[in-house]
Amino acid sequence: MEEVMYLMNSLWTLVAAVLVILMIGGFILLEAGSTRMKNAGHVAGKTVFTFGLASLVFWAVGYAFIFGGNANFFTGMTDFFYSGENTADGSLATTVFFVFQLAFAGISVTIALGGFAERAKFSAYVIFTILFGIIVYPIIAHWVWGGGWLAEHGKQDFAGSTVVHLTGAMAALAATIILKPRIGKYNKDGSANNLAGHNQVYTALAVLILWVGWFGFNAGSTVSVDGSFFGFVALNTNLAAGAGAVAATLISWLVLGKPDIPTILNGALAGLVAITASCAFVDVWASVVIGFVAGIIVFFSSRFFEKRKIDDPIFALSVHGTAGIWGTLSNGLFATPELATTGQAGLFYGGGLHQLWVQFMGVIVCGFFAFAVSFTILWVMKKVMGSIRVSEEEEIMGLDISEHGSYGYPEQMTAETVLAATITEQREVQIY
Amino acid sequence: MEEVMYLMNSLWTLVAAVLVILMIGGFILLEAGSTRMKNAGHVAGKTVFTFGLASLVFWAVGYAFIFGGNANFFTGMTDFFYSGENTADGSLATTVFFVFQLAFAGISVTIALGGFAERAKFSAYVIFTILFGIIVYPIIAHWVWGGGWLAEHGKQDFAGSTVVHLTGAMAALAATIILKPRIGKYNKDGSANNLAGHNQVYTALAVLILWVGWFGFNAGSTVSVDGSFFGFVALNTNLAAGAGAVAATLISWLVLGKPDIPTILNGALAGLVAITASCAFVDVWASVVIGFVAGIIVFFSSRFFEKRKIDDPIFALSVHGTAGIWGTLSNGLFATPELATTGQAGLFYGGGLHQLWVQFMGVIVCGFFAFAVSFTILWVMKKVMGSIRVSEEEEIMGLDISEHGSYGYPEQMTAETVLAATITEQREVQIY
Amino acid sequence: MEEVMYLMNSLWTLVAAVLVILMIGGFILLEAGSTRMKNAGHVAGKTVFTFGLASLVFWAVGYAFIFGGNANFFTGMTDFFYSGENTADGSLATTVFFVFQLAFAGISVTIALGGFAERAKFSAYVIFTILFGIIVYPIIAHWVWGGGWLAEHGKQDFAGSTVVHLTGAMAALAATIILKPRIGKYNKDGSANNLAGHNQVYTALAVLILWVGWFGFNAGSTVSVDGSFFGFVALNTNLAAGAGAVAATLISWLVLGKPDIPTILNGALAGLVAITASCAFVDVWASVVIGFVAGIIVFFSSRFFEKRKIDDPIFALSVHGTAGIWGTLSNGLFATPELATTGQAGLFYGGGLHQLWVQFMGVIVCGFFAFAVSFTILWVMKKVMGSIRVSEEEEIMGLDISEHGSYGYPEQMTAETVLAATITEQREVQIY
Repeated sequence: MEEVMYLMNSLWTLVAAVLVILMIGGFILLEAGSTRMKNAGHVAGKTVFTFGLASLVFWAVGYAFIFGGNANFFTGMTDFFYSGENTADGSLATTVFFVFQLAFAGISVTIALGGFAERAKFSAYVIFTILFGIIVYPIIAHWVWGGGWLAEHGKQDFAGSTVVHLTGAMAALAATIILKPRIGKYNKDGSANNLAGHNQVYTALAVLILWVGWFGFNAGSTVSVDGSFFGFVALNTNLAAGAGAVAATLISWLVLGKPDIPTILNGALAGLVAITASCAFVDVWASVVIGFVAGIIVFFSSRFFEKRKIDDPIFALSVHGTAGIWGTLSNGLFATPELATTGQAGLFYGGGLHQLWVQFMGVIVCGFFAFAVSFTILWVMKKVMGSIRVSEEEEIMGLDISEHGSYGYPEQMTAETVLAATITEQREVQIY
Repeated sequence: MEEVMYLMNSLWTLVAAVLVILMIGGFILLEAGSTRMKNAGHVAGKTVFTFGLASLVFWAVGYAFIFGGNANFFTGMTDFFYSGENTADGSLATTVFFVFQLAFAGISVTIALGGFAERAKFSAYVIFTILFGIIVYPIIAHWVWGGGWLAEHGKQDFAGSTVVHLTGAMAALAATIILKPRIGKYNKDGSANNLAGHNQVYTALAVLILWVGWFGFNAGSTVSVDGSFFGFVALNTNLAAGAGAVAATLISWLVLGKPDIPTILNGALAGLVAITASCAFVDVWASVVIGFVAGIIVFFSSRFFEKRKIDDPIFALSVHGTAGIWGTLSNGLFATPELATTGQAGLFYGGGLHQLWVQFMGVIVCGFFAFAVSFTILWVMKKVMGSIRVSEEEEIMGLDISEHGSYGYPEQMTAETVLAATITEQREVQIY
Repeated sequence: MEEVMYLMNSLWTLVAAVLVILMIGGFILLEAGSTRMKNAGHVAGKTVFTFGLASLVFWAVGYAFIFGGNANFFTGMTDFFYSGENTADGSLATTVFFVFQLAFAGISVTIALGGFAERAKFSAYVIFTILFGIIVYPIIAHWVWGGGWLAEHGKQDFAGSTVVHLTGAMAALAATIILKPRIGKYNKDGSANNLAGHNQVYTALAVLILWVGWFGFNAGSTVSVDGSFFGFVALNTNLAAGAGAVAATLISWLVLGKPDIPTILNGALAGLVAITASCAFVDVWASVVIGFVAGIIVFFSSRFFEKRKIDDPIFALSVHGTAGIWGTLSNGLFATPELATTGQAGLFYGGGLHQLWVQFMGVIVCGFFAFAVSFTILWVMKKVMGSIRVSEEEEIMGLDISEHGSYGYPEQMTAETVLAATITEQREVQIY
């Protein structure tokens, strides 16, 4: 009987891993659709490449750093170049767990690279993917999931609002600051232009694919079929996404006079990001509340960043960062004693401020670490490489042609189109 | 052992639920690809939103009405704002079943809203999604699947040719009648124009995604792994889809002189819709026949509706309505006594007209109920809101810009494009 | 307990079959994105149609030929028009296995039809799909997987580098030779033009969807949950894909001066194709090597074919053919005695040249058979039909309008666009 349970856990976890990898497809569409036609091939192609590269880095180093025991304060130290031993750790075949975790590492770096959009060199993607996969993500994942000090303090982050999403978003923040805004984003008088993404069908489909993949991300993080608990997690996940979409629709309608499509889509994603920390620890109604609040927060967050001249084309900071923080903290508010792993109830369930404090500390430490290390990496890269941003001319031409030598849409992007776009773009805009 | 079977059933049902939710992605592409560029962002974005909203409505009310016992002739009355108790009902964790059913409710309203395409206000989508999710879908689902009177009469609708597809299609019919045809669809002399959808790659991919999702829809409706019966259901589903595509290819080639791509795609979908009622009750060869006939019917059905000035941009009436009726009735023809839940054979297996009559009654009652209630809802909405259709000017501008303030394809939809389209469209067409 | 294992195997295999069918969606995007806008609707629509048709052919004949015993040297002879008996063959419900194999047959013909792109008549697709599904694929599959003579010789092809990919690619080669290059591909002076595919977002998403589906293809080919071995296969699959993408990036950067997006994408696919034969037989590090080499090979292979005036718009020959050969042979180099079904180690594990010879023989025989029979079929078709290629005028107009009567992108493909394209295309190009 134990053997059967063990195989069933493996089966569910592998299916979940496949769903998480499908999310990379969601990110391809989300990033391509949120950027301009002249960069579409670059954006889509690099996402496939960086997931491949991140897989190799995770295999060589990442897994060992996260799960290879407690060798030092920062990392584990066994299982480099993981050889796929098929032993069981009590409930789950290690290799299946490895694939599941590989997918998570791939998602986190994909989020981080969102902050590079439409202006970074391809070589910057290559180097940052490697370094982030060695000295940023694994250390935070080790602290929270690999038996590190935050795990010991009882930080609860079921599927990674902090570990995956906030970490990625803080790296993206470092990138947006170092790279500076895209040409044309801000006018000389300081006002912002909307360099709208070129395809909302892509972004809407992206959100749906991510929504689907999130069942693997969250419900799969049970890595077990025990008591069909994955069903409860899936329900919380779905309702938070729905509540986020509805809230974002309402708030954009109220503030802008019309329900804004990018906001609606970000609302669904923010609900998903926020519930990621708490999906296994809170009641169903609380998931609806968490998702709803996330849908409102993401709207104001993205306006905030735009005003602060932090140019974030794919909303990585607001969707994964701000909503990731809210999700992590909400655990300290809504966690029920029956469900929480530590048995520690959230504020609204009579547990006082204890869990909220632990969650807050986790956000601050992980957020600061991810930002600081990423910023340092990028700063050094900039010094060493001369620049991690393409030239002004290349950016105006678009990264498809300048970085890769062919357009993503060769029949639609003719020299004329680009010329026309160029003329428009150079009118009175701030060049960085 | 029983515990293991119960967990395995849960696992399969959750995987199936995820596949059904993936179908929403198929509908995003199907509807966006079947409509024009100026409405693409609206169509794609609203589909994400309405699935989110429908999820919340199902959680608050829908599930209670369908499965909350037999409180009255129309509905059950327990489990409002479902709290996700994780109890088992003998074979399946309730919460997993809840998620599976939530997905079905989301699909049905998505079909219904297809009838609104390219002319309804966004606010009409919001209100109708709520009302359909409370007083249309749950009542029919209760009658057939929730232990209501049609279930007692032995109506067989395995995965919802009637409950999900016909119900959605009849609501879409009500909408097309109340909304009237799109500007430009019909000329003053009564002849029809082809306001072709803007992207057949989207629609072809949509059909494939729906085909894949349908394995969750149909084979998942076993909600059980008993005897690997899901494999038999999956086989019937796949062959009906294939036969539908082949039949539609042949009939369009024969009648139009060329194999018509939209017809081929509708043929595959019609095969899938038709086999939905019977996939667990009929022999493999019968599935091929049912799918083949569906592929022919859908071609003539869509011509019929177009001639009757019923403007149905995404073919919801023919694909989900006409094929849904055929599928439901075919059960009374082909059901084998070995497989039928009631043991009642279809006409061709010596069972006489009994099951055909039951199926016919189900179609008439459910179809009429869905149409009448939807029509009433929309009629009242029209009176209260003044109009549920955007203004003539807004429709010509496109719903992306008029309802949401931004284009789905901002680089391709310039003022010039729209102007040019406007000139073409206003030439001699009937304005409603 | 045995009953439970049997059901779990069925469950995994059905999920895997669904993932493989999802790959058809990947091919829709891959082929549409790799071809031009005027052919996009045709390419996408025909892929849905041919998968439907191939399903029916497999049901009627293909399965019987492959798995219906050893009736003669070429085929089995039982189970035509498979009736879906739900008996178990020891470990797996037959019907589930049938659906899984149906998906494989569908993938192989889809690869084969890639060689027809942008110039073949729709009727040629119809006829070739039927004949390939009867007298090409089933015979090779019978030899290797159905207990035929290559199986007896110990040929190892776990999930079909030879059976599915090489077979499809050799048929594609026959097609490219018989059909001759597209108008505009080669100039009169013999130099080649880049008739670039129109959408790299499609092709990048395609690769990701194929990557995801490949977990069903490879890990699903265990058709079993025993020992969670599927996890090991999944890991090898993912790393080979990643290594292929990375290698292709490096080699294109080195040779062309820029990392070429189509090459990167082909690299990931080549890694997947190559590891398909060996994923269950080799160590993890070997998978990385196999994938890496595949990513380099595919780059040079596609340059080779282009120079030889073999016009292969979707790179079917290099991705599925050359990488399929490498994958099959690599088994003879890297197979470990612990994992190999025959216990025969590869060259690098001290097994000498034996397994390499068996693999080589398999490649030669299967490759030659697939090419020769496909060539003969197409040659006869050409004689009987007059031509299997559309007229020069139709090709220039595009297959959407000439073969199907409507554009895939009706708002973007106006008469003017086509006229302009025509003028460009006819300048100094070689007309076949």
